[in-house]
Amino acid sequence: MKLTLLSSTLKADFDIIEKEMELAIQSEMGLLQKASVQLLKAGGKRIRPVFVLLSAKFGTYNIQSIKNTAVALELIHMASLVHDDVIDDAQLRRGQPTINYIWDERIAMYTGDYILARSLEYMTNIHNALAHQILSNAIIEVCMGEIDQIKDKYRFNQNLRDYFRRIKRKTALLIAVSCQLGAVSAGADEKIHRKLYKFGYFIGMSYQIIDDILDFTGSEKELGKPAGEDLRQGNITLPVLYAMKNETLRPSILKVNEHTTNEEMVDIISAIKNSGAIEKAYSVSRMYLKKAITVLDELPPIKAKKILRDIAFYIGKRKY
Amino acid sequence: MKLTLLSSTLKADFDIIEKEMELAIQSEMGLLQKASVQLLKAGGKRIRPVFVLLSAKFGTYNIQSIKNTAVALELIHMASLVHDDVIDDAQLRRGQPTINYIWDERIAMYTGDYILARSLEYMTNIHNALAHQILSNAIIEVCMGEIDQIKDKYRFNQNLRDYFRRIKRKTALLIAVSCQLGAVSAGADEKIHRKLYKFGYFIGMSYQIIDDILDFTGSEKELGKPAGEDLRQGNITLPVLYAMKNETLRPSILKVNEHTTNEEMVDIISAIKNSGAIEKAYSVSRMYLKKAITVLDELPPIKAKKILRDIAFYIGKRKY
Repeated sequence: MKLTLLSSTLKADFDIIEKEMELAIQSEMGLLQKASVQLLKAGGKRIRPVFVLLSAKFGTYNIQSIKNTAVALELIHMASLVHDDVIDDAQLRRGQPTINYIWDERIAMYTGDYILARSLEYMTNIHNALAHQILSNAIIEVCMGEIDQIKDKYRFNQNLRDYFRRIKRKTALLIAVSCQLGAVSAGADEKIHRKLYKFGYFIGMSYQIIDDILDFTGSEKELGKPAGEDLRQGNITLPVLYAMKNETLRPSILKVNEHTTNEEMVDIISAIKNSGAIEKAYSVSRMYLKKAITVLDELPPIKAKKILRDIAFYIGKRKY
Repeated sequence: MKLTLLSSTLKADFDIIEKEMELAIQSEMGLLQKASVQLLKAGGKRIRPVFVLLSAKFGTYNIQSIKNTAVALELIHMASLVHDDVIDDAQLRRGQPTINYIWDERIAMYTGDYILARSLEYMTNIHNALAHQILSNAIIEVCMGEIDQIKDKYRFNQNLRDYFRRIKRKTALLIAVSCQLGAVSAGADEKIHRKLYKFGYFIGMSYQIIDDILDFTGSEKELGKPAGEDLRQGNITLPVLYAMKNETLRPSILKVNEHTTNEEMVDIISAIKNSGAIEKAYSVSRMYLKKAITVLDELPPIKAKKILRDIAFYIGKRKY
């Protein structure tokens, strides 16, 4: 997250969350501690906590009660990343070696479990039944999204609906829930927190589509992993689905597997970029962004609304 | 669990839990549904739900509110079994093929996550902050126990303390918490639920030691997996730790690894059985059982107390 978008008070609250995250993963077990710190170091944009803070502004904002929600959500996200890297056999995450790469798959599995368990501990401090229901449902959906992803790997005959359902579960839902739960934890009206959920959902869809585009248009340095890695790992994303509609291009995409060489990938990436598939994917991302802004416009005119709008456009234009 | 130990009303309540477990794992995802049903079919003794029901009798017993606690605990246990089987590369669990064997490690990983997430959903229905704290702490400890187990595999120079800490986290804690949470959910006094925790802890230690003994003394049919499999997988249990004190036996144990043949295992198992290590392990198990009975004696004289006592002795004498 580009922190310049936030006001100085919000920045201070963001630091509270960041410190709490460090506390959250502390463990008397050396290995677990090292593995979790490795993950925390890899950083990430922390967009979920930022959305929690901002959406809480639509209710009675209190950083001490909001922080539990923010930390719980970011920990759930971190846990899913660890298990995701196991599935993808990923060696790098944001330029840092993954836990499964440094140690092994099994350590990674339990580090994920442990971080998820830590998130439950934070949830314990949230005294709101609705928040608990939303959170546990979100974890179930995230798990189903991960299983979708395994099932759909290298399944080249999947359709757009499969893709959208997968990214909803994988990404959009947790962002939607972050936007909703800040408001719920701050006691905002149902009308408000439902709109924030929708805003987060649309932003999340837009965000993931751009992420999937960047896998083709980003450099290895920007991505922290080689370009085209998603495709090589069998993750069929929106640009790939569009590119496969091109009958000349389709056969070479169908041949991709984990043994496809870097040289072959360079050719395929360049062909996908020249097929118009990237532009089509961008236009879907923009469509979601537009829907997000439309929902946002219906919310009360507070300062946080302006920041959410800035973040939405920032996400729409991000390069990595 | 030998259901003849339970009264007919308790049996009816037990059936409610069993049906709820079936509902709990239902999923619109075919694969997930199949994997979870596979696990449920493998059954198990369901001792955690039974302990929840019985300990709830020390408070204001209401099956509808208790059942959430019982189901949540059994689901946590099931999730840990799935991940456990991945770690152990187990092909069979209670005579049924494991999820990692039928599908693969990755599907098993997310089935475990999914079942854990389902347990959170049940926890959502428990409106008691103390119960939530106890449960989330228990999940953290179970994860740490699993990581302990990975770290301690084939580490032949570990000591008794390592073993006891591991089985506490791996088994005893969740049984302790089952006994405690039934009472907590039924609004029993702190004095009562703390004693029930202790009772469960001692029973759990006794139970796991016997489990570790049966790995040597049980038949393949009784165990649902070959005898000596724990040792072959590098899990150093109490009988092994005692057998290693025998200088003649020690070198052949140190040589065990996952490639040790069935014939070699038969010799080692027989040597361990003749070393007196099994009897020593049994006496520790009995010591824990005695402690459990002593704590139980301090509880009010209700009918459930008698059943808990019967279960304790049943566990002490179980053959598989």
